[in-house]
Amino acid sequence: MKPEVSAFKWVPPIAQGLVRDLRVRWALHEANRAYDELLIGPEDQSSPEYRKLQPFGQVPAYKDADLTLFESGAIVLHIAESHPVLLPLDPVERARAKTWMFAALNTVEPPILFYNQLQLMSLAEDNQVCLAVAKAVDRRLSELSAWLRGRSYLEEQFTAADLLMTTVLRILRGTHLLDNYPDLQDYQARCESRPAFQKALEDQLEVFREYEPA
Amino acid sequence: MKPEVSAFKWVPPIAQGLVRDLRVRWALHEANRAYDELLIGPEDQSSPEYRKLQPFGQVPAYKDADLTLFESGAIVLHIAESHPVLLPLDPVERARAKTWMFAALNTVEPPILFYNQLQLMSLAEDNQVCLAVAKAVDRRLSELSAWLRGRSYLEEQFTAADLLMTTVLRILRGTHLLDNYPDLQDYQARCESRPAFQKALEDQLEVFREYEPA
Repeated sequence: MKPEVSAFKWVPPIAQGLVRDLRVRWALHEANRAYDELLIGPEDQSSPEYRKLQPFGQVPAYKDADLTLFESGAIVLHIAESHPVLLPLDPVERARAKTWMFAALNTVEPPILFYNQLQLMSLAEDNQVCLAVAKAVDRRLSELSAWLRGRSYLEEQFTAADLLMTTVLRILRGTHLLDNYPDLQDYQARCESRPAFQKALEDQLEVFREYEPA
Repeated sequence: MKPEVSAFKWVPPIAQGLVRDLRVRWALHEANRAYDELLIGPEDQSSPEYRKLQPFGQVPAYKDADLTLFESGAIVLHIAESHPVLLPLDPVERARAKTWMFAALNTVEPPILFYNQLQLMSLAEDNQVCLAVAKAVDRRLSELSAWLRGRSYLEEQFTAADLLMTTVLRILRGTHLLDNYPDLQDYQARCESRPAFQKALEDQLEVFREYEPA
């Protein structure tokens, strides 16, 4: 049985290429594993059946012969655990990569997500909260940039942590917050140039083209 | 060598009992492992030496004989991986527990953290952003509550995921957001009644008492 990954049939252009099933598709392509899609619409997100699979109604959820999982970070970790291209076999390198997976999702992503959500609220540019959150994002970017100085990846080689960090930085597209960090832009471009990323992105966008509302 | 966990010498009362080294202390007590503290002050957070250990200047960082790690989620996972009390040995149960670890930190915690940070900004009660974020928190709480219906823990037994989820819910103390969820309050109390939690909390508070500013 091929693993099955849930994804949306369609989202507005502002979210296309960002929805979190992208992370899982990317990991599966890195691992050279074929997969099926379980395509859902807004009505499925609150259905009792889908909630059994994904208690928060989000995508992605993941099913294979043995188990069902949810949370993009957890699914990527699950795939990575049996594919050294995403998680080195050396125990120390492995633990370091996992540390950076959590850093991407629990330290760098939260302020970026918050900024992203504030932008959708059409607040005034000098709104006190927007300014504070932009500053919080900039602080994380500057710390990440300092760490990456002299490094191509977060640790010695590309891992699932770089995969997640890249998808976090992508959320900032359409903002100016990366303008002061050409090194982070280079890092993101380096990771996104991987064939597995390109295939994953195309997989996601292809579905949206197919289900584009008339 | 005992593992070493970084923690703050002192934080204001509003943060006492919430700082994230609590998660690691709790995991170590569940695993019945002694540890040393690496106590730091605000001046250490930006020192090049500490940044080598923790690139974002946060606590906790973690050192043992073999490796250094950071991110509370990653450190708890590292400890849990060799202690079945925190992560069952069965591969499916293990993967499910990890899924909920990520759900705690990447789905439930982010809106709670934003709400917490907004409260520190002393905005008007009817501030548009505050209302939207309170709603986002409530949505996650209601989804979590629905999942926990008929369950004592997120999955069959207490795991590292419950440990993390409990510390996430704790951030809401001093707000009314849990008032409509007695089941979540019971869940939190059930997890916090564990002796390992009580010891961890006491360990953290003891340091603050010792370093209380005159």
